[in-house]
Amino acid sequence: MESVPVEALSRHVPDRYVEMGLQALSRRHAMVQRLIVERKLPETPWTDDMVVSFLNELAAMDANNFEGVIGVGEREGRVFSQLVARRSYGLIHGIGRSGDITAPQPKAAGSSVLHHLTLDLLHSLLVDCGIPTARRPILMPTATGLGLLMCLLTLKKTHKPHAKYVIWPRIDQKSCFKCITAAGLIPIVIELDKGISSGKDSLTVDPARIEEAIVKYGTGEVLCVISTTSCFSPRAPDPCDKIAAICHDHHLPYLINNAYGLQSTRCCHLVNEAMRIHPDSTLVVQSTDKNLMVPVGGCIITGGSDALVEKVAKTYAGRASGQALIDVFITLVQMGKDGYRNLVKDRKKKYEELKAELYKLADEFAERVLDTRDNTISLAMTLRTFDEAQMDGDTVSNLGAKIFRRNISGARVLSKKKATVFEGHEFTNFGMHTSDPQAVAYVNAAAALGMGDGDAVRFVHKLRKILKEEEKRLAKQTMKRA
Amino acid sequence: MESVPVEALSRHVPDRYVEMGLQALSRRHAMVQRLIVERKLPETPWTDDMVVSFLNELAAMDANNFEGVIGVGEREGRVFSQLVARRSYGLIHGIGRSGDITAPQPKAAGSSVLHHLTLDLLHSLLVDCGIPTARRPILMPTATGLGLLMCLLTLKKTHKPHAKYVIWPRIDQKSCFKCITAAGLIPIVIELDKGISSGKDSLTVDPARIEEAIVKYGTGEVLCVISTTSCFSPRAPDPCDKIAAICHDHHLPYLINNAYGLQSTRCCHLVNEAMRIHPDSTLVVQSTDKNLMVPVGGCIITGGSDALVEKVAKTYAGRASGQALIDVFITLVQMGKDGYRNLVKDRKKKYEELKAELYKLADEFAERVLDTRDNTISLAMTLRTFDEAQMDGDTVSNLGAKIFRRNISGARVLSKKKATVFEGHEFTNFGMHTSDPQAVAYVNAAAALGMGDGDAVRFVHKLRKILKEEEKRLAKQTMKRA
Amino acid sequence: MESVPVEALSRHVPDRYVEMGLQALSRRHAMVQRLIVERKLPETPWTDDMVVSFLNELAAMDANNFEGVIGVGEREGRVFSQLVARRSYGLIHGIGRSGDITAPQPKAAGSSVLHHLTLDLLHSLLVDCGIPTARRPILMPTATGLGLLMCLLTLKKTHKPHAKYVIWPRIDQKSCFKCITAAGLIPIVIELDKGISSGKDSLTVDPARIEEAIVKYGTGEVLCVISTTSCFSPRAPDPCDKIAAICHDHHLPYLINNAYGLQSTRCCHLVNEAMRIHPDSTLVVQSTDKNLMVPVGGCIITGGSDALVEKVAKTYAGRASGQALIDVFITLVQMGKDGYRNLVKDRKKKYEELKAELYKLADEFAERVLDTRDNTISLAMTLRTFDEAQMDGDTVSNLGAKIFRRNISGARVLSKKKATVFEGHEFTNFGMHTSDPQAVAYVNAAAALGMGDGDAVRFVHKLRKILKEEEKRLAKQTMKRA
Amino acid sequence: MESVPVEALSRHVPDRYVEMGLQALSRRHAMVQRLIVERKLPETPWTDDMVVSFLNELAAMDANNFEGVIGVGEREGRVFSQLVARRSYGLIHGIGRSGDITAPQPKAAGSSVLHHLTLDLLHSLLVDCGIPTARRPILMPTATGLGLLMCLLTLKKTHKPHAKYVIWPRIDQKSCFKCITAAGLIPIVIELDKGISSGKDSLTVDPARIEEAIVKYGTGEVLCVISTTSCFSPRAPDPCDKIAAICHDHHLPYLINNAYGLQSTRCCHLVNEAMRIHPDSTLVVQSTDKNLMVPVGGCIITGGSDALVEKVAKTYAGRASGQALIDVFITLVQMGKDGYRNLVKDRKKKYEELKAELYKLADEFAERVLDTRDNTISLAMTLRTFDEAQMDGDTVSNLGAKIFRRNISGARVLSKKKATVFEGHEFTNFGMHTSDPQAVAYVNAAAALGMGDGDAVRFVHKLRKILKEEEKRLAKQTMKRA
Repeated sequence: MESVPVEALSRHVPDRYVEMGLQALSRRHAMVQRLIVERKLPETPWTDDMVVSFLNELAAMDANNFEGVIGVGEREGRVFSQLVARRSYGLIHGIGRSGDITAPQPKAAGSSVLHHLTLDLLHSLLVDCGIPTARRPILMPTATGLGLLMCLLTLKKTHKPHAKYVIWPRIDQKSCFKCITAAGLIPIVIELDKGISSGKDSLTVDPARIEEAIVKYGTGEVLCVISTTSCFSPRAPDPCDKIAAICHDHHLPYLINNAYGLQSTRCCHLVNEAMRIHPDSTLVVQSTDKNLMVPVGGCIITGGSDALVEKVAKTYAGRASGQALIDVFITLVQMGKDGYRNLVKDRKKKYEELKAELYKLADEFAERVLDTRDNTISLAMTLRTFDEAQMDGDTVSNLGAKIFRRNISGARVLSKKKATVFEGHEFTNFGMHTSDPQAVAYVNAAAALGMGDGDAVRFVHKLRKILKEEEKRLAKQTMKRA
Repeated sequence: MESVPVEALSRHVPDRYVEMGLQALSRRHAMVQRLIVERKLPETPWTDDMVVSFLNELAAMDANNFEGVIGVGEREGRVFSQLVARRSYGLIHGIGRSGDITAPQPKAAGSSVLHHLTLDLLHSLLVDCGIPTARRPILMPTATGLGLLMCLLTLKKTHKPHAKYVIWPRIDQKSCFKCITAAGLIPIVIELDKGISSGKDSLTVDPARIEEAIVKYGTGEVLCVISTTSCFSPRAPDPCDKIAAICHDHHLPYLINNAYGLQSTRCCHLVNEAMRIHPDSTLVVQSTDKNLMVPVGGCIITGGSDALVEKVAKTYAGRASGQALIDVFITLVQMGKDGYRNLVKDRKKKYEELKAELYKLADEFAERVLDTRDNTISLAMTLRTFDEAQMDGDTVSNLGAKIFRRNISGARVLSKKKATVFEGHEFTNFGMHTSDPQAVAYVNAAAALGMGDGDAVRFVHKLRKILKEEEKRLAKQTMKRA
Repeated sequence: MESVPVEALSRHVPDRYVEMGLQALSRRHAMVQRLIVERKLPETPWTDDMVVSFLNELAAMDANNFEGVIGVGEREGRVFSQLVARRSYGLIHGIGRSGDITAPQPKAAGSSVLHHLTLDLLHSLLVDCGIPTARRPILMPTATGLGLLMCLLTLKKTHKPHAKYVIWPRIDQKSCFKCITAAGLIPIVIELDKGISSGKDSLTVDPARIEEAIVKYGTGEVLCVISTTSCFSPRAPDPCDKIAAICHDHHLPYLINNAYGLQSTRCCHLVNEAMRIHPDSTLVVQSTDKNLMVPVGGCIITGGSDALVEKVAKTYAGRASGQALIDVFITLVQMGKDGYRNLVKDRKKKYEELKAELYKLADEFAERVLDTRDNTISLAMTLRTFDEAQMDGDTVSNLGAKIFRRNISGARVLSKKKATVFEGHEFTNFGMHTSDPQAVAYVNAAAALGMGDGDAVRFVHKLRKILKEEEKRLAKQTMKRA
Repeated sequence: MESVPVEALSRHVPDRYVEMGLQALSRRHAMVQRLIVERKLPETPWTDDMVVSFLNELAAMDANNFEGVIGVGEREGRVFSQLVARRSYGLIHGIGRSGDITAPQPKAAGSSVLHHLTLDLLHSLLVDCGIPTARRPILMPTATGLGLLMCLLTLKKTHKPHAKYVIWPRIDQKSCFKCITAAGLIPIVIELDKGISSGKDSLTVDPARIEEAIVKYGTGEVLCVISTTSCFSPRAPDPCDKIAAICHDHHLPYLINNAYGLQSTRCCHLVNEAMRIHPDSTLVVQSTDKNLMVPVGGCIITGGSDALVEKVAKTYAGRASGQALIDVFITLVQMGKDGYRNLVKDRKKKYEELKAELYKLADEFAERVLDTRDNTISLAMTLRTFDEAQMDGDTVSNLGAKIFRRNISGARVLSKKKATVFEGHEFTNFGMHTSDPQAVAYVNAAAALGMGDGDAVRFVHKLRKILKEEEKRLAKQTMKRA
């Protein structure tokens, strides 16, 4: 509308009405312009309409949408279903080229502009989150596991093709482990310790054990160290700063799985330190779905140096889906500058609320909330008495299914188990992050980004009911037995 | 995007890619600009994206969408459901003001621009359809019946407040009749004749009968004449040119129900003649749903003089729904200049196809297709033998339901009936447009705008089956009786 | 999914996952079923998905969406633009038939089911709002003005064809007045008085004046009385109970314009009383956009007796748009049972807040907030000093435009004016509801349904600034003059 | 609606209308049921409405959409932007689990059902395309390059961890090559030959050269052979049957890049043969965007044995995006059984048309269309004279940009070049698939799936103009030089 003469718009409509309308419209256009020029999260969140119009305009810049275009290639961004075309706003060509996932596409100028604009917005988000050392990231349209795999393949290819081992402080989450074996590498599992970090029940890696392993396997044979920030309590963030220093000393790359750590200032601080200390060889991967509340299927890869991040971009073979990009872009402009900050603040409040509620509950059942104060997202409350009272081969972990059936999603119940063999490695108590034969059963609950208002209270209320029922059931069993 | 500096867009993306994209985009913007400046149906049909972006921009010009607007009125275009807001593209304020349905709204500049742009497009469509005498129309968000009623109320109020009668050549369609009684007027029913128009079975009004009625009831007491163009065969378009001349002589307004006549060049020619002959007092109403393939609920009111059309606009009390406007606008820009013309051409072909198929069918069953050649949309095939063979109080019109159950919509079966009393008037053979005691039963089928390819053949094929079954049923009955 | 065998769904997916999913789905289906069976606003608001799926299912019941249907009628619900079809969810046939706006359509079973379901929901809403005497209403897809017109035409046609006059207590809103003249009737304007109702500045009709007018013009010549509930302060709701009693005594119909009164318990109480006292001949019209926060273009017509409401339904000539129906249905199920109640509660709070803020402001400028306590939506603050200080033919009403330019929508500034001639009648101070030569200028602001949080404070804050600027401007002028 | 009592639906609407509507609805439900039970492409393509309702129902089975669900996990499928949620139909959890990309998710029963249903539909599509030996595939939400990489990593991990080499018949497309180096493997480039296949200008691999390489590098060191079907002319599909036999003899896995080969019966036949001959160790990867006309970002991985395909599924680390799944599902049900077949037929026709047009053009300019008859998608016409006439360091490949600027997308102009170094390997004439120092310049055009009607003619028409301009330009230059 910008270029339309006002007198044409004002046919049959008074000038002064049209002018006020155009002023409002030009404020909107100014917002778009500011975003493209400044490349920072917008002050004012964008409305749905603004987003749709903007994406439509970008799509019009892609060759598949050129009016009258004749396509004689093998890949022309044709779409069979209009339903499919619409849900991608006509942005069909995805991102990247054979050579590089961040390479602009000649056939898709609009998609390419959107891609690079979004990377700049993500960069500004990382800085806002307290990671000023983060370099301009890549948005990889794969979940975190595959993102870590791409980092490993990059390091192997560009850094140390003959290395065999990856030092891996234990974290009982399969995809982190799997990305090592999928890359054709051998994980060196480092068991965790209590007493390393501030929480007295927290399990984290003792940096000394990492150094030992490096020495044992030899820097020539070790590709890198992978460690973890966000995780289920009692696992707590690894001391990334100390590990970075060790890697720096040994000239080893350091790969951090900051899965859902963007929402935690503590995790952000740790990865920032790591990149500050060991800039040239630290890579950090984080999930888009967990941190940005978008559908599963994207990760943000940043690192301490542009060159390193670029190597990852260049390792990716071929073009990639633009769907994660669309979701992330929309979310960032609709959150706006304060949106993310407020979500993080709100999350902290809910974590405190959940903690307080769990403390009350633990009291009632003579259990305790584990002191994992350095894990600022996930909490664990013991289920010792419930575990010990099980009979006939029952296990307290059956409570997990009961909880889910009560319309509670995401709570986990863990108790000791025999060895699990996974990818050729044997783990004791898999899921508990520890091989301790004395490990006490517990239930996990997290206050993650976007948790519903009142959900902490409602959860504990329902859990209380479930535990009471379980007490009754166990009491009955005991009586029968007697 | 127009006002964004290219260098900002080209951050990380080669200039030459961006420039080609911007060229495509500016061709699109030029299309929008051309529409607003020229106010004619576009050469190139608009894509969904273009439409959505354009409507979004207009909506941004309405006060309810102003960023940060504070509403302290009683009517602020607030919408509770986002689903509802979205389906109207944020265009909430409707059209018109208390004084006039075409009055622009200060709070809704965007809606007002859209409204007047659409009226201009409709005007250009009317001219394209062969009605150059049509003045800039109103789009009334009511179906045709209520549109006719508004015309009658306007004529009564502005022209002849004390008139009582409306001369009404019979057309067996309730809402046309009802709009007269709803306006507090008395219909003078004029029975129809054969032999007036070119089709030898066609039923139309003999202009002489209209003149007689005018003389009988007195020009002082008669408000106007209402007649019909498009209709079910054997009813055929009235000789509007001759009626217009009579009205002109008697200084009587003339109101034409051109319900679905825009799709017929013959009907368009007739209403054009009427407005040419009697410009100052001829009003023509046509349906948007039947002529433009939009949802029910709009009509286009035009007339031979701007002053007359404006009087109708000013009679409408208050604001009105903008939904018909949105549907019509979208449809017009997506049809484009050739779209409507091609639909009309295609319709003619299908009419010929349907006629040919029905002739074959009539032959097979010793029935005949009525010669109503001047009705270029609807056809009728007699069901004389089927009607005569009915027993036990059965009626051939039961076939109608059978046809519908075979997934055929819109076929009608009619046969003689006793008097129907409707709005205090008694009609013989209601639905057949004639009181002839010899009226022969028939089935109607129409080739209306947008008829599916192959549907004419498929319809007759299915009808053949149904008639064969009916023959069998009747034969069995006769045998039993014997 | 309901009828799909679980084992088919569970191919490759564990039964227990599928079963939990199906339970969730069947809770959703139960909600739909409950709505259709109970025909009351739902306990739990419906999500967008539920609404869309439900409307899709209903649309599938309309013949235009039958798989393989063959259309040979003139009106087959064909849609040219998919964008248009989509925004109506494929519900194309609108509502009603030639005979009656509430008549189900054989071709559109789904639309008809939706229509009648929505009427039942509206009925339950009216009762919930405190109008238990309201009968099952009509939803007319026209704004209030045309709804009132249809009521007048109905009364004229079915009740007293020869009546000429309508008794109309003055309300300075054009469409209310226009609907009388459009119906070919003559308004008898009754001037208002202060001191009739509780607010000492309120302007309402003195019932005695109505009785006088009835006597003066004769019950044979008077068609009905029209009065008003919701309106701009200092106009306040008319004493509908007393007027109803007078109409009852004189066997006159009573038509109430309850424009945006559903959101006010006071207005609801008044119209309920009127229908209780004079059930057989009271009709009440209310706007959908102002009361239900949907786009402009619908009104709800109810009355004290089913027979009377049905007469209105039967007066409407022909089919009508289904758009208002779709918007209203979606809104009602997404509001749910408590939704409307909470909106009304919230509105009251905001009215008190706005009042308090205006009192403060009035103090600062030595103006006063008019005591119109019986108008529980709209407020007025005098601008006496600003009005008196104008020079050079300036008028305080220029402030209105200044306020709008500050991104405030809906505030009105009124001051004395010469006679306005409208539809042949002369009004003094049109807009102020009074011919009082001493009428003091004022600014109006309303706390209507859906007002934004904090908007009352923000409005008064901005208004304060504007008034200060105006003070300065006037002071400067005075100095210059001196 | 299925479970709603008819009498509830029929409140105020005649039973017989409702029943016909319900019949139509139940035909629709039967279609859904049939799909889930039979797991084959539907006879009748699904409408948008059906798709949306079905996806809504599935989404309702995912825990993130459970009414009243309480989320206390770190990954609860929360979505910040409603725009984002909507475009994925509320299907947020993606696909797969840490262990396996095809593993159902307890939190996402609906997504899991959709996933496995879609895999079955894809399987039925592969069989329909003439690949009956294909086993139930994986849909990987990555483009082909990364799909090939995952296959290589799988083979390396599960088959021969210590292998170093991949035998790679040259195909000048970067991502195919890159996936080898990214996997940490060394490509053994096999140059191509003419005269191996039916087209006398076709370039394909001589199977004998593959055997030689295997022998040279040793079966212990060679991981697998990768070869190509669909490609740019004069490259033509490799003799996959013969290569499969060689791999079978040497117990080597065989990986085929069938990029856009599904649309070619010839490519399908070749990969089918390969899997028939060497079932246990043949994997085939094909693109979703090029073969199914969906946005970039998915590939279909199948193989000759279920066990092998499953190994790939299990190598993928972690969860993955569900976007490709949604796009593919929608497309398959909207294509229906005949849809794909018709697209392929239509493509063949367009290939013949394009070929005929190019032959005419070649004649006019004394060039020739290369005989690459075994490449049934892409064509090449020489530009020998244009290439030879270049001066001042100009190159005929500049024509490529000129063609693109004429709104033609996808044509490629290639001519001899010096060595290109890519991933540490040196290629002569990169893009031409041959190191032949005599290689003649040519322009490529393809008739790929979904090519627009008339585009072949329009393309050649425009190309003719461009070549004429180029002739003129070159003639002018020559004159100047003279």
